Amino acid sequence: MTAPYPLRYDLENCSIAGTLQLIGEKWSLLVLRDVFSGVRRFDDMQHRTGAPRQVLSDRLGSLVAAGILHREPYRDPGQRTRYEYRLTEAGMDLYPVLVALMRWGDRHVDNPDGPSVELTHRDCGEQVELVLRCHGGHDLASARDVRPRPGPGARALA
Amino acid sequence: MTAPYPLRYDLENCSIAGTLQLIGEKWSLLVLRDVFSGVRRFDDMQHRTGAPRQVLSDRLGSLVAAGILHREPYRDPGQRTRYEYRLTEAGMDLYPVLVALMRWGDRHVDNPDGPSVELTHRDCGEQVELVLRCHGGHDLASARDVRPRPGPGARALA
Repeated sequence: MTAPYPLRYDLENCSIAGTLQLIGEKWSLLVLRDVFSGVRRFDDMQHRTGAPRQVLSDRLGSLVAAGILHREPYRDPGQRTRYEYRLTEAGMDLYPVLVALMRWGDRHVDNPDGPSVELTHRDCGEQVELVLRCHGGHDLASARDVRPRPGPGARALA
Repeated sequence: MTAPYPLRYDLENCSIAGTLQLIGEKWSLLVLRDVFSGVRRFDDMQHRTGAPRQVLSDRLGSLVAAGILHREPYRDPGQRTRYEYRLTEAGMDLYPVLVALMRWGDRHVDNPDGPSVELTHRDCGEQVELVLRCHGGHDLASARDVRPRPGPGARALA
């Protein structure tokens, strides 16, 4: 059997590994879930995720350092200034990752009542899905319809 | 300010959290990247991911237990029987998660030469993308065009 072609290329600049360096951890992804849901304050996130406070604080700091979240000051009456966390444009671009995780869970994680959240199109109200589509306009049914090829940044191993 | 609606619902059956329980860890996701690339053998994965052997073994075991991978025996000449790891149908359904991670990295992880891998449609050769689309046939530009609503499994908090 010939080795699959990925074994002949360097992984130093793998886009998946690069993304996982920034968000590839359960608490980071749960924080992003919350921020996409409009939950922006530390105490709310802590309550929802159940992450230990120090871990949550670390993950939020990493997401800010990575340019995925930014901090905005707010002040409730009689309180000191606090910060809430909002998505940057780069952070907004992570939405397909969250939708893909959610759709898989809707389908494969045991949940007798059905999904707890549905996504609809703001304009027309119809349900939203994530679709693999090629520039020729074809929908792809699965990974079997995809052929990967080395891109411009591919580095062959010696 | 009114609290965002997610704060009024139970997260016990969150599909994202459920998925992350199974794959929400960097090494698990890198293993899945490899298997989707046709890399199925322990030593190849270990070489490519750089995961410590015990960690890799644990993650593979968890992915098998979760029904995402299955083990297939193989035997090289003069060697004992070994196992390679293949995707189940549930595992195949994780492909959009990997594509979403890859596409974000292509765009936002510093990589001066461009992406190391491109995905093309096996039938027509055109490049493949992940698109948010509603059942009304509209493409959605971003998360801003999505309105989440409670699904059938939503459980309001007391």
